[in-house]
Amino acid sequence: MNSKLREPDWKRVDLLIKLALEEDLGDAGDVTSKSVINADAKAKAQFISKEDCVCAGIEVAERVFKTLDPAIVWKTHVQDGDPCPKGTLMAEVSGNAQILLTAERTALNFIQRLCGIATASKRYSTIAAENGTTTILDTRKTTPGWRMLEKYAVAVGGSMNHRLALYDMVMIKDNHREIAGFEGPDGIARSVKRAREAYPHLQVEVEADSLDEVRQALAAKADYIMLDNMSDETMAEAIKIVKGAAKLEASGGITLPRIASISKLGVDFISIGALTHSVKSADISMDIYPEKG
Amino acid sequence: MNSKLREPDWKRVDLLIKLALEEDLGDAGDVTSKSVINADAKAKAQFISKEDCVCAGIEVAERVFKTLDPAIVWKTHVQDGDPCPKGTLMAEVSGNAQILLTAERTALNFIQRLCGIATASKRYSTIAAENGTTTILDTRKTTPGWRMLEKYAVAVGGSMNHRLALYDMVMIKDNHREIAGFEGPDGIARSVKRAREAYPHLQVEVEADSLDEVRQALAAKADYIMLDNMSDETMAEAIKIVKGAAKLEASGGITLPRIASISKLGVDFISIGALTHSVKSADISMDIYPEKG
Amino acid sequence: MNSKLREPDWKRVDLLIKLALEEDLGDAGDVTSKSVINADAKAKAQFISKEDCVCAGIEVAERVFKTLDPAIVWKTHVQDGDPCPKGTLMAEVSGNAQILLTAERTALNFIQRLCGIATASKRYSTIAAENGTTTILDTRKTTPGWRMLEKYAVAVGGSMNHRLALYDMVMIKDNHREIAGFEGPDGIARSVKRAREAYPHLQVEVEADSLDEVRQALAAKADYIMLDNMSDETMAEAIKIVKGAAKLEASGGITLPRIASISKLGVDFISIGALTHSVKSADISMDIYPEKG
Amino acid sequence: MNSKLREPDWKRVDLLIKLALEEDLGDAGDVTSKSVINADAKAKAQFISKEDCVCAGIEVAERVFKTLDPAIVWKTHVQDGDPCPKGTLMAEVSGNAQILLTAERTALNFIQRLCGIATASKRYSTIAAENGTTTILDTRKTTPGWRMLEKYAVAVGGSMNHRLALYDMVMIKDNHREIAGFEGPDGIARSVKRAREAYPHLQVEVEADSLDEVRQALAAKADYIMLDNMSDETMAEAIKIVKGAAKLEASGGITLPRIASISKLGVDFISIGALTHSVKSADISMDIYPEKG
Amino acid sequence: MNSKLREPDWKRVDLLIKLALEEDLGDAGDVTSKSVINADAKAKAQFISKEDCVCAGIEVAERVFKTLDPAIVWKTHVQDGDPCPKGTLMAEVSGNAQILLTAERTALNFIQRLCGIATASKRYSTIAAENGTTTILDTRKTTPGWRMLEKYAVAVGGSMNHRLALYDMVMIKDNHREIAGFEGPDGIARSVKRAREAYPHLQVEVEADSLDEVRQALAAKADYIMLDNMSDETMAEAIKIVKGAAKLEASGGITLPRIASISKLGVDFISIGALTHSVKSADISMDIYPEKG
Amino acid sequence: MNSKLREPDWKRVDLLIKLALEEDLGDAGDVTSKSVINADAKAKAQFISKEDCVCAGIEVAERVFKTLDPAIVWKTHVQDGDPCPKGTLMAEVSGNAQILLTAERTALNFIQRLCGIATASKRYSTIAAENGTTTILDTRKTTPGWRMLEKYAVAVGGSMNHRLALYDMVMIKDNHREIAGFEGPDGIARSVKRAREAYPHLQVEVEADSLDEVRQALAAKADYIMLDNMSDETMAEAIKIVKGAAKLEASGGITLPRIASISKLGVDFISIGALTHSVKSADISMDIYPEKG
Repeated sequence: MNSKLREPDWKRVDLLIKLALEEDLGDAGDVTSKSVINADAKAKAQFISKEDCVCAGIEVAERVFKTLDPAIVWKTHVQDGDPCPKGTLMAEVSGNAQILLTAERTALNFIQRLCGIATASKRYSTIAAENGTTTILDTRKTTPGWRMLEKYAVAVGGSMNHRLALYDMVMIKDNHREIAGFEGPDGIARSVKRAREAYPHLQVEVEADSLDEVRQALAAKADYIMLDNMSDETMAEAIKIVKGAAKLEASGGITLPRIASISKLGVDFISIGALTHSVKSADISMDIYPEKG
Repeated sequence: MNSKLREPDWKRVDLLIKLALEEDLGDAGDVTSKSVINADAKAKAQFISKEDCVCAGIEVAERVFKTLDPAIVWKTHVQDGDPCPKGTLMAEVSGNAQILLTAERTALNFIQRLCGIATASKRYSTIAAENGTTTILDTRKTTPGWRMLEKYAVAVGGSMNHRLALYDMVMIKDNHREIAGFEGPDGIARSVKRAREAYPHLQVEVEADSLDEVRQALAAKADYIMLDNMSDETMAEAIKIVKGAAKLEASGGITLPRIASISKLGVDFISIGALTHSVKSADISMDIYPEKG
Repeated sequence: MNSKLREPDWKRVDLLIKLALEEDLGDAGDVTSKSVINADAKAKAQFISKEDCVCAGIEVAERVFKTLDPAIVWKTHVQDGDPCPKGTLMAEVSGNAQILLTAERTALNFIQRLCGIATASKRYSTIAAENGTTTILDTRKTTPGWRMLEKYAVAVGGSMNHRLALYDMVMIKDNHREIAGFEGPDGIARSVKRAREAYPHLQVEVEADSLDEVRQALAAKADYIMLDNMSDETMAEAIKIVKGAAKLEASGGITLPRIASISKLGVDFISIGALTHSVKSADISMDIYPEKG
Repeated sequence: MNSKLREPDWKRVDLLIKLALEEDLGDAGDVTSKSVINADAKAKAQFISKEDCVCAGIEVAERVFKTLDPAIVWKTHVQDGDPCPKGTLMAEVSGNAQILLTAERTALNFIQRLCGIATASKRYSTIAAENGTTTILDTRKTTPGWRMLEKYAVAVGGSMNHRLALYDMVMIKDNHREIAGFEGPDGIARSVKRAREAYPHLQVEVEADSLDEVRQALAAKADYIMLDNMSDETMAEAIKIVKGAAKLEASGGITLPRIASISKLGVDFISIGALTHSVKSADISMDIYPEKG
Repeated sequence: MNSKLREPDWKRVDLLIKLALEEDLGDAGDVTSKSVINADAKAKAQFISKEDCVCAGIEVAERVFKTLDPAIVWKTHVQDGDPCPKGTLMAEVSGNAQILLTAERTALNFIQRLCGIATASKRYSTIAAENGTTTILDTRKTTPGWRMLEKYAVAVGGSMNHRLALYDMVMIKDNHREIAGFEGPDGIARSVKRAREAYPHLQVEVEADSLDEVRQALAAKADYIMLDNMSDETMAEAIKIVKGAAKLEASGGITLPRIASISKLGVDFISIGALTHSVKSADISMDIYPEKG
Repeated sequence: MNSKLREPDWKRVDLLIKLALEEDLGDAGDVTSKSVINADAKAKAQFISKEDCVCAGIEVAERVFKTLDPAIVWKTHVQDGDPCPKGTLMAEVSGNAQILLTAERTALNFIQRLCGIATASKRYSTIAAENGTTTILDTRKTTPGWRMLEKYAVAVGGSMNHRLALYDMVMIKDNHREIAGFEGPDGIARSVKRAREAYPHLQVEVEADSLDEVRQALAAKADYIMLDNMSDETMAEAIKIVKGAAKLEASGGITLPRIASISKLGVDFISIGALTHSVKSADISMDIYPEKG
């Protein structure tokens, strides 16, 4: 994972902030703050982790406030990727009190989710690193609208990004071959050949459900072979067969307890859908105080 | 909960489908399907629950396919809100094979998430119903961009929607009063008065952290009083104090095990942030088969 | 009316400015100014009221100029809500001469309309204030695209805003009951009950065409009762029946001459559609002078 | 005025309908209809003029309903341009009852405004026609966002459209000459020359404040001369001077009572800002009835 | 051609830059620069003409860089319209190295195209100027999406802009008359009359395929007459017939070699479609160098 | 080149059609057709090639008409990729006469450009095919906004598409290495390593300016090596060095006369910028006839 990639997709962040503020403000805005608090009141607030987590998206929160009011003053105390033990002061914000209260929930909705993903990513990647050189990958099982942002949080947590989408890599599953009518022992080879002709500049991964398919994928010169729902023993066999001539990816409902043993086998990658499809938000609070004018 | 409300927010669904397909297809599209499978191949597929869940958003999945190709044929076997025991055939889809494969992941990303929310909502609302007349509410802790859709899935699961946003109800928390400088025994009354003057057509809820604040909110004629992070015993006291003169809402990190006891107390509502901020996707698969031309 | 609300809806203002400039400039722009006047010529201009009016939207005019050229210098001499007797210097603007001439008509189209609304609003609210405590309300009879902006001008003129839209308050008219089949003496009660179940966090207003319906609305615990097209005498009866248990709103083609007498009756509100559906622009001119470079 | 032009600008209509429905529905929609009326209830409604008016925009109303629900059935009884004496059945609509109630106000907000403009336009153009061959023109004093639609309503009422915008005709006012430094007897000639060079394919109008300027504009071969704020006597002189070598337009705060006498003078055009800047909505109602399923 | 018009249509430029960057960056961006070059590396670059050309759109290139990073420093050495002999240093840019490499191709795609058009425009207009007073015009044969920008480059090169679009001038071709059924000797007159009635503020051009049609157009008082696909001899006759009473435009597949002879005839305009429909990009390079931090 | 890819990017086509029609119609539309021709007149038209060309984008032309009026009837006589000798009837269209005339120029602007590109692509690819197995590739030197559409026309003409954009392949040029400070004999290897780490799922191409760099790229296991501005002799050497272990692409201002000799050498690819940066529109006409009602 190259450090320079670790930057949120600001274009999409800005769109999601816009949608989130539209959802929450409508045309009439925050009726509570606008009526109860004086328009010129000032306040300050602190973002504090209420449980151990990995920071991700802290600048997204800043952007929420500045979208509403560019004059808001923001100070970040941790960087994305930093571990935040319970009680860490992550950032401080000060400025117009109405704005702070209006933006609070939207800002939290962003960073609680992103920190939740980064924290899970770190948990998986740490175990893999303790047991070998296997890399943890994410998948395309992301929240619609959040693809690049969730992949960012995964990278921040120390796991790596698999293909981003349907367009930047060929991945041939059994469904493709079956529907193409490419069954039988040359089905994988025929599928790879068609993909290479159409997209010579892209890599090709082949899903293999058995050692026989692993051998076919190897013969077809796939760049990657996905070992789908295989036992540790079968994966060990696959590694012997392939001998480094293609990259190997373990996949299929793999949960935390299996990471250590699979990593020890020596596969190149393990892909984990739960990193993005079943996210538990990190517990982070924003504590607000009045500020003398 | 009125049954007529149980309809997804199609305007937002269409936007999210557009974003999701853009994320996954870019300009070049599904390079695997386009190169391996003939453009005129046909296929059919079945959506099947792989675990017990409550159906939500099944028409959203249909819409994903029809966005790519209006000629896709879709047949729904369950309705939103129906329980789907493991193995339930939820829907069938048939048509162009490339389209089916291209849309698969996006369709699943939608319904797995929505069904996950509805399933959790049902779990909470069932326990509440078994223990009294308390209603489960959601919160504003939703995924940015998904507010109305997540609230739809909550309603489908039998819980109810709290205020949608910052604009359709006044909710006065201690932060508002503190920053407004409305401290002391008349702080709640002064806050409510300002809100009533500005927005006479909106309801007002007051957050109370103590029985003293409950009494103040009652005196200020709040429509709703939020009992924030109170023990069961304290909430029981609050109920005696208020005697039905305002609606009472239990709130603050309440988890499943406490639902039964709180419901038995007789509060009107319990609000649960986890319904939307920590979602576990339901396990649903789309099984694809070739179809003879 | 809370003073902090008195701010235009800038998001909508910016959209309308964009639309207005697109309408007036197209792709080719102001062909007269671009060809007759040198590109670097400077000018200054004064906005002056040509008749007595109430200022509203003066910053909107500023925004028109700055949308075309952020370097324009603007100086406001009156605030929204200020009375502007004939001949008042409302604002001054200086900068690029082509820009000033190009923006002139669009800027005037905005403020002449907004000042026109504020001036009418002030006329109604002043008479009401001189005759009691009745508040003048606007309606949803606004120019499509201008809802929030016209409601802003109404508030600036001293009247108040009724519900903003269909979503932030329930208003049950006889049409709703008739089509729902809720006729007979319990029709209002049944209607209110359904609305309360679906939207517990919203207020409910009931339209009453007779004293009998006023009594039904009162029994159904409506928050508001609209006295529709009633004579002063009937409204006086309604007030006696309701005794403050619900807010009362006089409505139905009420014109300026009736404001005094209705206000004296003591209804809480009078709603006036003409404030926004039949606007006479205020007469304001922009006088331009060359400025030495 | 060519009859084929009499068609609303549908692109802009669709945008305004979208904005209007967004303003009125937000994310939550028509809470009253959704909660009180069954989702499958049917209704029908009649649009009826409550005062004498000229029809304009009747299809716009249809479009409002069909934007919400393409299955709505609409029947138009009058065409744009038709006189509608009080009590005229203008159109009928039937279909889903919730949709009819939700769209009612938006549809009325459009046609009441457009009919109001067409009715005023007809009033002016009728008097002009009774007193000669002078044509009534509109101006650029239109509601931001509504330019083309208001000009459509003017045309429907029998008056004609002046230039649409800043881009399709050159109009040289004294401000342009003064700021360009083109003062003195050749100022108009120099201004016209510059415009002709830059935009040879456009017509040129010159504003004249005196008979001397009329002569200069004539010498500069302006296509049009605007007689600004002149008395009838002065305009009569101008006509003698110009002898048909340029078109003459009377302008400047001209109200209904002067139309007859100015028309008799024989100017080619009179332009009237009030046609669009000070509109009184026509009184039209939509009467709704339940319909048996 | 008025110098003040020589400014690109920034609104459209910004849209095209947005589209171009989206096309080239997608969601994942410039994967090469992001992975190979450090995020904080600095670089500088020079834009140099590799062949003789006329500069056009140099500020558009600047805008490409600043869209990606407002902190980029740009220095222009030539202005639009300047001749750039081979080897001319046109501009320099410095700043973040990743940004410079990412923007390089998009910036070049813009200016190579615009300079190519300006260079061709200059070639045509120079020959015309050497042979009389005829003005070279462009046409509506432009690249979809690039209308105003290509017309800008034409003007920069010294030719003039014909009508911009279908809306700002009437141009009656034989097709219009034939389909309108206006054939026979009064067909042109009838067509012109209808156009004048509908659009009194617009100029009218008539396409003439023969001297007979030239006479008819003259009699109909067309402002412009297009001499379509005529020989030099026929055009000479047309000039004698019209005697300056209308502007004459030579049109129809006219290529460079004929410009001199046609100009000598004395027609007012020659329109050239190839200026925009068959563009050869100018050869311009961007040479990049590392810069010490 | 896989035949299934040969479909225009409809999403972008629709955007460009929208932009083109906005440019040409503005708010006022085709003033000539609207005033001269009756609104209900019918016409038919034929698209005919006026020179030999390859068809590309014929359905785009259809889409232009149907965007304006879905009732237009269109009949295509040739498919994209078909050779169209001079005089070929490519398509016929019939329907409303105003629509046909309004859409004519926009439709032609699209297909003349796309056919021009396809025709050039065919010219290059035919010569390559006659001289070996070398494949012609396009580049990223495309018209901003037209990337995918121009690449479509290239593919239709029988050449192939190189990487689409900056995001779907790594291409390391000497600039990248120089700015990264990766000079010296291991510079290429270090660059490739960084790219592989960050984007394991993407292919890597290395630009080589000398045989020494070819050897370095080979040692670094580049998937592709670009032979930049090399003589035929040097390229022959490179082929011997690489022996099929990487794909070889000849690049750098290569024009038609060199295609045959380079193809005979046996490089895998030749990339040609002129295919898209210097397009000559194909000569295609649309002949219109009146049609009896």
